[in-house]
Amino acid sequence: MRYEDFVDLKYEPAHTDVICDFTIRPKEFDIRKAAGGVAAESSIGTWTELTTTKHYLKKLAAIVFSINGADVKVAYPIELFEPNNMPNLLSSISGNIFGLRALESLRLRDIHLPEKLIKSFRGPKYGIEGIRRLLKVYDRPLVGTIIKPKLGLKTQDHAQVAYEAWIGGCDMVKDDENLSSQKFNPFEDRVMQTLESRDRAEAETGERKTYMANITAETDEMVKRAEFVLEQGGEYVMVDIITCGFAALQTLRKRDFNLVIHAHRAGHAAFTKNPAHGISMNVIAKAARIIGVDQLHVGTVFGKMHETRKEVRANIKALKAKMSGLKQVFPVASGGLHPGLVPALTEFFGKDCVIQAGGGIHGHKKGTVAGAKAMRQAVDATVKRIPLRKFAQAHKELRVALQIWDKVL
Amino acid sequence: MRYEDFVDLKYEPAHTDVICDFTIRPKEFDIRKAAGGVAAESSIGTWTELTTTKHYLKKLAAIVFSINGADVKVAYPIELFEPNNMPNLLSSISGNIFGLRALESLRLRDIHLPEKLIKSFRGPKYGIEGIRRLLKVYDRPLVGTIIKPKLGLKTQDHAQVAYEAWIGGCDMVKDDENLSSQKFNPFEDRVMQTLESRDRAEAETGERKTYMANITAETDEMVKRAEFVLEQGGEYVMVDIITCGFAALQTLRKRDFNLVIHAHRAGHAAFTKNPAHGISMNVIAKAARIIGVDQLHVGTVFGKMHETRKEVRANIKALKAKMSGLKQVFPVASGGLHPGLVPALTEFFGKDCVIQAGGGIHGHKKGTVAGAKAMRQAVDATVKRIPLRKFAQAHKELRVALQIWDKVL
Repeated sequence: MRYEDFVDLKYEPAHTDVICDFTIRPKEFDIRKAAGGVAAESSIGTWTELTTTKHYLKKLAAIVFSINGADVKVAYPIELFEPNNMPNLLSSISGNIFGLRALESLRLRDIHLPEKLIKSFRGPKYGIEGIRRLLKVYDRPLVGTIIKPKLGLKTQDHAQVAYEAWIGGCDMVKDDENLSSQKFNPFEDRVMQTLESRDRAEAETGERKTYMANITAETDEMVKRAEFVLEQGGEYVMVDIITCGFAALQTLRKRDFNLVIHAHRAGHAAFTKNPAHGISMNVIAKAARIIGVDQLHVGTVFGKMHETRKEVRANIKALKAKMSGLKQVFPVASGGLHPGLVPALTEFFGKDCVIQAGGGIHGHKKGTVAGAKAMRQAVDATVKRIPLRKFAQAHKELRVALQIWDKVL
Repeated sequence: MRYEDFVDLKYEPAHTDVICDFTIRPKEFDIRKAAGGVAAESSIGTWTELTTTKHYLKKLAAIVFSINGADVKVAYPIELFEPNNMPNLLSSISGNIFGLRALESLRLRDIHLPEKLIKSFRGPKYGIEGIRRLLKVYDRPLVGTIIKPKLGLKTQDHAQVAYEAWIGGCDMVKDDENLSSQKFNPFEDRVMQTLESRDRAEAETGERKTYMANITAETDEMVKRAEFVLEQGGEYVMVDIITCGFAALQTLRKRDFNLVIHAHRAGHAAFTKNPAHGISMNVIAKAARIIGVDQLHVGTVFGKMHETRKEVRANIKALKAKMSGLKQVFPVASGGLHPGLVPALTEFFGKDCVIQAGGGIHGHKKGTVAGAKAMRQAVDATVKRIPLRKFAQAHKELRVALQIWDKVL
C-alpha cells in the first residue's frame, strides 16, 4: 500500500475508532500523501511496498477521513492498540511520525478515544467531587501555594512556611516540582514535619488542610514514597507526569492508594509551546485524566506562563467534559499568580479550579501568613462579587498585595 | 533576588556543577535577564521577590556564566539534584522554563553532568563491547530488521518473517515500536514463537541471532515481560523510552536483568525537531546512557527521518565519547534504510553501529530472505571496500535491491 492508499474521504469512523486531529505542513508531498503517510506509519504501512503484507491486514489500516486545508483527521481501528497501555497508544499516534523528513511540521491537536479503550484504564479516583468532599469546601475555588524559594529551604523552614500558608488561609500546600529528596530537605523528614504543620494548622483554623508531597522518582521509589505519605497520614501526592512518564504514572494509579494524585506538567512546553509542531496540552490532559490523575496544571492565562485563552480553555474542557463516565479532574492554575488576578481567573475558570500562587503569596511584604490571607480575601471577595479594591478597604493584607502586584489601587 | 542576579560572567564552574547549554530567544527581556530567568526558575528564584528566602540559600543558586549571542551556559550546584533520579533532574533543567511567557523559544542543546551525579545511576550493563561479545561479531556493523508491516501480522506470520530475516543474514530482529501486546499478536505467544524461530535460525546458520521483544507498557507489566523474555531464553528487550518515560526505564535498569536494553525513541521529534525550541536529541541520548540503555536510535542521515548530519553526529558522540567510565552505547540507524545506503552509512557511523532496515529488507521483490541477504552483502562489500555495483555482479540479491531502491545500477 502506498501512502495515498490510506486516504478515504468517504470513510465514516466507527464508534470504536480512535480519532486524532492533526495539523500537517508537508515539505515533500502534497497534503493528501502526507496525511496518508501519517496514517500509514502509525498502522500497517511504511515508506516502501512490502512483500510481507497479508490479506487479513487491511482492516487494521488507519484511515485519513477528513482533509481541510492543513487540518486532517485520522481514524485508527481500536485493535491497533493494547488496552490499558498509554505508552503503546502514544508510540502509535504520536511516535515516529513527528520525525518524518517529508513533513515540515506536525501537530497532534486532539484525540478522541472510544469508550472501550478509555474503560480499560482506571481514570481519576477522586476528581473534583472527591477532593471537595475531602476538603469540605464546595462553593469557591481552592487556594493552594507552592513552597518558595523553589529549592533550598531546609526541612524545618519548609514546614514552617507551609504552616504559615495554611493558617493564612491556603487549603493546599505543595512542594515545588523539582523538590524530591535532596540532602537539604530529604523526603521522609519533610513529609513528617510538614504533616505535623498541617495538623497544627487544622487544629488552629478548624479547616481541612492538605499537603501535596512530590514523590517524583524512579517507579519503585515513587511507590515507596506514596506508601510513606499514606502511613504518615497524608492524603495527597504530586507527580511530575512528563519527566516521570506515563508508564510510572499508570503504575502509581494501579496501586490504587487512598491518595489524591496532583499532576504537575513540568517539561510539557518543550513539545506543546510551538502551535505548529508537537502535541497540544489538551491531548496530555486527556491522557492524564484517562490514566487517572485528580488535579492537573492547565495554564493560567494571566500569569507568567505562555498559553493562550483558547489553549487553556481546551485544557479545561479535556479535564471536565463528559468522557465515558470518567470523573472530572480539578484544573490547577499556577505560575506567576497573585491576589489581583483572582477575579479574572475565577471568571475564566469558574469556581471549580485550584488557584495556586507561590511568589504571589510568599512575596507579600508582610510575609507568608499575610500573603495567604490576601489570597483568601481575594477569593472571598470574588465569590461575593465585591470588587477587590472595595473589599481591600477593610482587609489590609489584600490592600498590601494589590499595592505590590497590581495597579488596581 | 531578581533574574539578573543569577548572571555572573566571571563565575568559573566547579567540577561538581551540572552545566547546561541553552539557546534563548527572549520575547520580553534582554538576553541577560532572560538567561537569569532560566537559571532562577530552575534553582532558588521566581518572578517576584520573596520574604521566605534564607541567607543559607545563596550557595544553591544556578549561575549564568556565559552569554554568547543567544547561546547561554548555566551552572547548577550538584546539591540541587537528587542522585539517581532522572525525572528530578529533568524537572529542573528542562521543566517549567520552556513555558515561560517571557521567552519566545528555548532550546536545551547539551548537558554535562559531573562524575558524582553520573555514578549515582547504573549506566549501560552491556554496551557496544558486551553486545559484540554476545553476538560474536567484532568487525562489521550489525544488521537488524524490524518486522513489517508495522502492525497487524499474526504471531505465526511474525515469527516466520523473523526466521526469514535471520537466515537471510540479519543479526537482530526487533518488534515495531508500537507493537506491545495486541490481540492479533499477544506478547507471550510472540516471544515464544519468535525465539523458537531464532533457535532454528541459529542452528541453520551457525551464527548468533537475537530477538528484541518490545516490552513497552506500564512499569510492573514491563518488568513482568522482561522476566518472561529471560525465562524463555531471550537476551534482549526493547523499550520506547520516551512514551514510557524515564522513571520506568530506571526501574527496568535497576532490576539488572541479564538482558540487553534496546531503546527506541518514538515521539522524541515532538520536542527535538524544531532547532529553536525544546530539547536536543543528544541530551536524551546522554540521559538514556546514564540510566543505562545499551542501544539507542540516533537518526539515519540518509533515510526517511529528518535529522541533519550535525545532529546525528552529536547523538553518536553522546553515546560513545568518554563519560565518567560509562560503557559506550550502540548507535542504531533506523528509518527508510536499504542496502544501497550501507556504504554511506558505514562511512558516517563507523563500524560500531546497528544498521536497521524494515521496508528496505521486507520490501525486496524476492521476499525477506533475499532482502536480508542483500543487506548482509552490502555490509560485506562495504567492509571489504568493494563498491556495491561491483559486488552486486556476483550477488543477485544485492543486485535486485539496488534496482528497486537505488539509481546505482
